[in-house]
Amino acid sequence: MIKTITMAHGSGRGLSDLLETVVLPNLLAEQGSVLEDAAVFQTLEGRLAFTTDSFVVQPLEFSGGDIGKLAACGTINDLAVMGAVPSHMSVSLILEEGLEVALLERVLNSLRDVCISCGVNICCGDTKVIDRGSGDGLYMNTSGVGRVAEGLALSAANARPGDAVIVSGDIARHGVAILSQRQNLGFESQVESDCAPLDELCAALLKAVPDTRVMRDATRGGCAAVLNEIAAASGVSIKLDGSAIPVTEAVKQACAFLGMDPLQVANEGTFFAVVPRASVAEARAAIGGGSAVIGTVGEASRFPVTISTEIGGTRPVENPPGELLPRIC
Amino acid sequence: MIKTITMAHGSGRGLSDLLETVVLPNLLAEQGSVLEDAAVFQTLEGRLAFTTDSFVVQPLEFSGGDIGKLAACGTINDLAVMGAVPSHMSVSLILEEGLEVALLERVLNSLRDVCISCGVNICCGDTKVIDRGSGDGLYMNTSGVGRVAEGLALSAANARPGDAVIVSGDIARHGVAILSQRQNLGFESQVESDCAPLDELCAALLKAVPDTRVMRDATRGGCAAVLNEIAAASGVSIKLDGSAIPVTEAVKQACAFLGMDPLQVANEGTFFAVVPRASVAEARAAIGGGSAVIGTVGEASRFPVTISTEIGGTRPVENPPGELLPRIC
Repeated sequence: MIKTITMAHGSGRGLSDLLETVVLPNLLAEQGSVLEDAAVFQTLEGRLAFTTDSFVVQPLEFSGGDIGKLAACGTINDLAVMGAVPSHMSVSLILEEGLEVALLERVLNSLRDVCISCGVNICCGDTKVIDRGSGDGLYMNTSGVGRVAEGLALSAANARPGDAVIVSGDIARHGVAILSQRQNLGFESQVESDCAPLDELCAALLKAVPDTRVMRDATRGGCAAVLNEIAAASGVSIKLDGSAIPVTEAVKQACAFLGMDPLQVANEGTFFAVVPRASVAEARAAIGGGSAVIGTVGEASRFPVTISTEIGGTRPVENPPGELLPRIC
Repeated sequence: MIKTITMAHGSGRGLSDLLETVVLPNLLAEQGSVLEDAAVFQTLEGRLAFTTDSFVVQPLEFSGGDIGKLAACGTINDLAVMGAVPSHMSVSLILEEGLEVALLERVLNSLRDVCISCGVNICCGDTKVIDRGSGDGLYMNTSGVGRVAEGLALSAANARPGDAVIVSGDIARHGVAILSQRQNLGFESQVESDCAPLDELCAALLKAVPDTRVMRDATRGGCAAVLNEIAAASGVSIKLDGSAIPVTEAVKQACAFLGMDPLQVANEGTFFAVVPRASVAEARAAIGGGSAVIGTVGEASRFPVTISTEIGGTRPVENPPGELLPRIC
């Protein structure tokens, strides 16, 4: 039984042993297929979505998830917000010498369980071993493909003045959970990461509102980064109603303590949708209870994203400079 | 102008700057498209191949290539040996704080140039930054998809007794080049990595011999690992003719000096094909001058892969144990 990763697991028989006794049994729903250089599967005619994400989060396990769950959800969500039905995923591991195999098994199980629940087939992979001191235990890449139904035209460039901006749930939980755990602040007992697959919610929204303009999950840089990207790509402005943005009390307290703006903190299971104003009721019914209409798209202006403040003013919402929250995904 | 990677490049405006001024201009053949969460493109009806590879090679630049060229060729070759025409690639970067941007630009250019030469569209990507001491400058993942023509049935499980084993060129150059450079042995002046895309050669072989049984590029673990995998998956044995295997004098000398078996040393632009014995002439004509018929497939036996020795005997060729050549890809 392999207990820790050694350099011998990087190729040859050592790698075969690691794959056969650890990686494949904990990653795949079914065992026993021949390992080829690439997976080959039948696709249907039409459009394919393709995405990739590497994960370097620290710690590897956190309140509400771990790097495996994050890697599965991250790639599933990037496909889902582009209107795709995620179908196949690759999993590539960079393991540091000395990594505890029990931990590796736990995160592979997490990854597998999300894929099973979403009907995603883990069809190809890769495993590399790096020497002690050249990593932080484990880095992971997932790439994925999925089919996009005809007729959808989702793009960050498609927001139009007059459209409504909807958020699927309360914001900033992932970043707060990670940061709290990393710095032993204690908030993680109250704040769990929102890390979750969004494929069902996105599909439900597209069924209810096929002319949805944009969907985006609000990961690195949080709402601020994503809304600024949408405003820039669409050539519009976005005006947020500060009082409408759902944030839990615990997240508010943590952000106040940490000196962070919840709008700039990462989410891993929360997305924005820009929909025609006339479809707001259908959209909210499809996304469900936690969702909220938080803003309106306007003509391009000097400040691409602004928010109304509690004392009746407005302030610009800027893309965070970038160094506040390293390695949260 | 960004000269070195800092943690600020990991998200927000720092990440946008890095992408816009460094990554995208050096990676993409055409600039200016909107960055979505996933690429969406039209596919043709039929079968799709999907593969992934992470690259942790040290040094990042070596005689005959660099991590960018390696990452492009690795994924293109994994698709090509499965009979696919590589069409789309993802590129995911894990950058260590302190990485010299000039180096990053060089390896991205290498990656791009291979993709342009092979008609592969780099369509999606991801960039993460890790703190100093958590990496070795740069890790890279490429995943890729390509279409597989109807009628092909390539698999490591398809070798049949009586088939011939062909190698596309001389072996063991990649591993020798890397190891020599890493340890300052001086062989790298004579031995360049074979790192190269195999898409054209594989397509030519399949056109000439559509019932080719197996193609495999002989990467980690070299010929020994790949031939043992084919023998195991197909339930056959493989008998190699030691005198027929092409190895350059410089590689022989280096392997003798290093105490390594060239059969266990990695290649990055060399592949094996198992073809029906009757198609050997067509196969060799398609693959070209450097190719050689090096063995025959037999019934399963106690030693899956054996080689005839210079003094008239045979010895088993074993999958290397694994720790000889860490981080060669």
